[in-house]
Amino acid sequence: MVDVAARTSTPSEVSAADGATRIDVARVTDLLFGTWADTRRTAREMIKDSAFWRDDSLGKDEHRERVLSQMHLLVEKKAVHRAFPKEFGGEETNGANITAFEELFAADPSLQIKAGVQWGLFGSAIHQLGTAEHHRKWLPGAMDLSIPGAFAMTEIGHGSDVASAGTTATYDPEAEEFVINTPFRAATKEYLGNAAVHGIAATVFAQLITNGVSHGVHCFYVPLRGEDGNDLPGITREDDGLKGGLNGIDNGRLSFDHVRVPRTNLLNKYGDVAVDGSYTSPIDSPGRRFFTMLGTLVQGRVSLDGAASWASALGLHIAITYATERRQFDGADGQEVVLLDYGKHQRRLLPRLATTYAQIFAHDEFLQKFDGVFSGRTDTPDDREDLETLAAALKPLSTWHALDTLQEAREACGGAGYMFENRLVGLRADFDVYATFEGDNNILLQLVGKRLLTDFAKQFKDKDAKALAAFALGQTAGKAFHGAGLRRFGQTVADFGSTARSVENGLRAEQQHELLADRVQQMVADIAGNLRHAGKDKVLGEKLFNENQADLIEVARAHGELLQWEAFTDAVNSIPEGGDTKKVLTWLRDLFGLQLIEKHLAWHIINGRLSTQRAAVVSSYIDRLCLRLRPHALDLVNAFGYEPEHVRAPLASGIEQQRQDEARAYYAALAASGEAPISEKALKKAAKK
Amino acid sequence: MVDVAARTSTPSEVSAADGATRIDVARVTDLLFGTWADTRRTAREMIKDSAFWRDDSLGKDEHRERVLSQMHLLVEKKAVHRAFPKEFGGEETNGANITAFEELFAADPSLQIKAGVQWGLFGSAIHQLGTAEHHRKWLPGAMDLSIPGAFAMTEIGHGSDVASAGTTATYDPEAEEFVINTPFRAATKEYLGNAAVHGIAATVFAQLITNGVSHGVHCFYVPLRGEDGNDLPGITREDDGLKGGLNGIDNGRLSFDHVRVPRTNLLNKYGDVAVDGSYTSPIDSPGRRFFTMLGTLVQGRVSLDGAASWASALGLHIAITYATERRQFDGADGQEVVLLDYGKHQRRLLPRLATTYAQIFAHDEFLQKFDGVFSGRTDTPDDREDLETLAAALKPLSTWHALDTLQEAREACGGAGYMFENRLVGLRADFDVYATFEGDNNILLQLVGKRLLTDFAKQFKDKDAKALAAFALGQTAGKAFHGAGLRRFGQTVADFGSTARSVENGLRAEQQHELLADRVQQMVADIAGNLRHAGKDKVLGEKLFNENQADLIEVARAHGELLQWEAFTDAVNSIPEGGDTKKVLTWLRDLFGLQLIEKHLAWHIINGRLSTQRAAVVSSYIDRLCLRLRPHALDLVNAFGYEPEHVRAPLASGIEQQRQDEARAYYAALAASGEAPISEKALKKAAKK
Repeated sequence: MVDVAARTSTPSEVSAADGATRIDVARVTDLLFGTWADTRRTAREMIKDSAFWRDDSLGKDEHRERVLSQMHLLVEKKAVHRAFPKEFGGEETNGANITAFEELFAADPSLQIKAGVQWGLFGSAIHQLGTAEHHRKWLPGAMDLSIPGAFAMTEIGHGSDVASAGTTATYDPEAEEFVINTPFRAATKEYLGNAAVHGIAATVFAQLITNGVSHGVHCFYVPLRGEDGNDLPGITREDDGLKGGLNGIDNGRLSFDHVRVPRTNLLNKYGDVAVDGSYTSPIDSPGRRFFTMLGTLVQGRVSLDGAASWASALGLHIAITYATERRQFDGADGQEVVLLDYGKHQRRLLPRLATTYAQIFAHDEFLQKFDGVFSGRTDTPDDREDLETLAAALKPLSTWHALDTLQEAREACGGAGYMFENRLVGLRADFDVYATFEGDNNILLQLVGKRLLTDFAKQFKDKDAKALAAFALGQTAGKAFHGAGLRRFGQTVADFGSTARSVENGLRAEQQHELLADRVQQMVADIAGNLRHAGKDKVLGEKLFNENQADLIEVARAHGELLQWEAFTDAVNSIPEGGDTKKVLTWLRDLFGLQLIEKHLAWHIINGRLSTQRAAVVSSYIDRLCLRLRPHALDLVNAFGYEPEHVRAPLASGIEQQRQDEARAYYAALAASGEAPISEKALKKAAKK
Repeated sequence: MVDVAARTSTPSEVSAADGATRIDVARVTDLLFGTWADTRRTAREMIKDSAFWRDDSLGKDEHRERVLSQMHLLVEKKAVHRAFPKEFGGEETNGANITAFEELFAADPSLQIKAGVQWGLFGSAIHQLGTAEHHRKWLPGAMDLSIPGAFAMTEIGHGSDVASAGTTATYDPEAEEFVINTPFRAATKEYLGNAAVHGIAATVFAQLITNGVSHGVHCFYVPLRGEDGNDLPGITREDDGLKGGLNGIDNGRLSFDHVRVPRTNLLNKYGDVAVDGSYTSPIDSPGRRFFTMLGTLVQGRVSLDGAASWASALGLHIAITYATERRQFDGADGQEVVLLDYGKHQRRLLPRLATTYAQIFAHDEFLQKFDGVFSGRTDTPDDREDLETLAAALKPLSTWHALDTLQEAREACGGAGYMFENRLVGLRADFDVYATFEGDNNILLQLVGKRLLTDFAKQFKDKDAKALAAFALGQTAGKAFHGAGLRRFGQTVADFGSTARSVENGLRAEQQHELLADRVQQMVADIAGNLRHAGKDKVLGEKLFNENQADLIEVARAHGELLQWEAFTDAVNSIPEGGDTKKVLTWLRDLFGLQLIEKHLAWHIINGRLSTQRAAVVSSYIDRLCLRLRPHALDLVNAFGYEPEHVRAPLASGIEQQRQDEARAYYAALAASGEAPISEKALKKAAKK
């Protein structure tokens, strides 16, 4: 743990080498901080208190206790109740709540996730799935942490496929109780925060069975521990022990041996059982009911998307700050070269910086959508579905990007990046699991892919037989769908003899958007065409699905990237014309767009969207953008608004600059003293002449 | 720590679904085990003893002590002396030594690396850089661990650029001593294993200064601690504390405040100072002398390449075993589908399996080359240079591949992959630093790129002015160099109307090799052409180098991939014709080759090597190969030869199959009992009819 977070001498004032073009750092910070900027500032200010920081010296057990005590501190500071009903001391502000919550990772990701378990999952299940009586009985305790709770959804045997959970809750009308049971080992609830040690209750997802009918997965409030501190009869808990990260959380397993809870412990907003055992629900379709219940818990994905995007930002703050101070190998002028002046180093860090900006802007739109739905302002079934799709598209991209960026940042800092005190390895280890929890990233993207296919099919619903026939042809349907296809030939002609500059003109915002959007549409059309051959043949359908699964996941990714690009562009468009800030952020957006196009370059050529001539210059255009952005790199990471108390990496504290200065001063003084040794190399060279 | 490593019921016997085509697992194991297979078996057998295993319950300090005690056990078992002179109890067998050494990672990577510090670096420096007197004085102690030593090369301010180290060793002819000094903070020796706690001596690299001349970096034997156990005057050591992994090693910093050592402590094989201070060396050029000294330490890179390749194998053993047992989501037959039957899951794991095979085969050729040079059998300056280039090409690829593979394996196992007991997160954390130590991967690849440029230039040395003029044209030179360029047009015509099958025929071994080799040659020619414009203008040269740096690193990677492909092909060719083993390994080699071509598809199209028609089917060919290899996946990982004592991941112990069987038996019995609840969904469906 860093006791004193060193404050560097306002590096933002010396970053743009020429002093000519400069971005307005404060303005960009405002833009990045988004809709709930004030709440974000409050949250950042709060965690400047070292009481919230991760203490790297602690072992697993001590770390768990420290995080629990930090949770009490969060209650004290009223930092985690914003989403709850005003009636219980909340503020009923959903967007602000997530904004504050996601910032906790900079203190310690274990704190963010354990707080997420308590208030975002356990408390939220009571709030979103329960009704007034449940709120009165358990919300205060969940909110003030007098009831630490586990969220028991995942089982050993079923992670992503929640609907197939094995745990049962069978209604016993005689006793007016539900019997919660774990019928086999694979049905054991697994990986639950608060389950190993601290939890005294749990919201348990189980197949609701009454009168011989299984109504699918519902949520039950189940006390785990009695007043005496011992686990109640029938409850077994196990400790997951050491994990790849997040070791400040006591993850564990729970199993239930015919544990009885009152009928009224069913969180009954979307499904209820009367005393006589009869089942009722406001939602008739069991499938839709299930997705509605799960949908109320989307905020987990919202906050992971935010935390992951900002973790990338923090990682880049560290690596880019270091890269502007660290020198290695002599340059043409005989001086050692600053790392970020190397072409490769720019290529490693600046495109990732551009992606991070895109994700932060996309996250704010996501937050707005989420707030609209959960505030009830824009809460239609369509809005809920869009929100789910947005969550499923953005969370995978940002969590994978965080792992990739933190790793590249760590390698870009060499051995120093591997030292735990410099944060990068610890953050990466903690964020590793973000890629598979709250929905495995590949499964989430597959959901998005399926939604895109559904929307595509809708296009043809009201079309006549002719259009349907065209659609069945797949490829052709794709071209009909978006009106592209023969463009390449014209482009080839236009590009002959073109200079780099004119090609650059052909890769501006409009063309970037067209390329990214066309790819999504064409891929969806292609996959739809491939799958259509199955008709009602289930076995063939499974075979064709498997053949197209990787592409389906890829098109979902492309869709998410397009959303990010659009969000970035909207943000750039919100900046008034004429200033350097707009110019630099436009370059950064271009860098984001072009690296996406470069990543999928073969697709764009094969599908006739880019001529080989134009494709050939995409990479060199990216190189030029990196070079243009180089003088602004430090400003661009300073705009993330992290202060020394958030960064806490000695590596990025200015210490490297001090060491460089000291070494250079030593050699200068030695040279001036006349006592510097002559190098054998120089002697040999002189002798040759 | 897993106390008892569970032994599963010979899974290799049930892997090929149809029972028809089967590979000969034992034969493939022999092939993978390579030239020193017996030594590899001995090493694997030794580490089946749980005394060598990592104990996950230990904190950093206890872990360090455990690893030290394991090192003594290695001495006892005579497991680490194979490379040393017979005179001192060694065997003078270099290839066998590295083979045994790299296997240690499966016990604990900390043990592998700390053993590497002691015997591969500290002991090896005495052996390779010292002379008879040094061997007699210090080799026995280094070998039997009575002298735990640090290898003090890297400094805070200079990692990759060793030649610029700041530490000085100034000869004082009056006292006949060298004065070792750390003149400023950045010159502090950093990240040294054994430096924080256990080391009592160090081999220290410092600028040798005598008679006012600096002769560049040389290595000195410096005692750190006296008989009384206290550090000697002028020695300061600091502890690096917690790292991202490898916490069983006591990495630390060393600085020297005018520490005096006898003149004879200079390890003087490649440079000596006489009593009067006069300097002599068998190698006249200071540059070549420096690289010769460093080249004697190449074995570190050899062993990292091996350990990383085998770590990928172990990770895939775990993830693929799990993927053949784990089921999730219902298939067309109403049964839950085994993960590895999903197209995407195959795409995630099988190409990585193919790459791992390629790397293991390439590593064996690397080991042979290394053994040839170090045994003196094939030890010419050219051989040494080739060995260096091979090391610089292969180590980056295999270490990055290990990180990528361990991460994908961990995600493919979901939450279970994040549990420390399942090995994947721990291995990944330990191997993270392999990407930047013993040479930063990007810097190493840059060395390879420069070597490729040098070799390219040599092609034109004896050519006349006309050829040189053509060369200056860059692009054109590239085409002249390898005689390619206009091939595309013919291919396009030939491919029109072709079926997938005929295209497949056009992507067989010969074409794969041509595509991979052409790309290396063309890229080298292009870069050479770009750089040539600088002439003798240093500033322009720096600018052009920076513009081409990313490409230079990329071509080095392409060169390494080509070497791997060739090694894989040689291995396949060594299998007798006709059997299923050869057929399956040929598919696996094709998968390796085609995924490389897919990765660089845009390049191949833009540069006229692949028609868009042929390029368009590369991905679907890969899909077909994955499907063909699916039934052999378990055999192919079993061929890695890991036994339960090496795997030690409960996840891959057969426990998942047991749980699946139990759950399915439960539902079958419930259905048979007639007491199974009816699902609401099924009721609603029936009511509709």
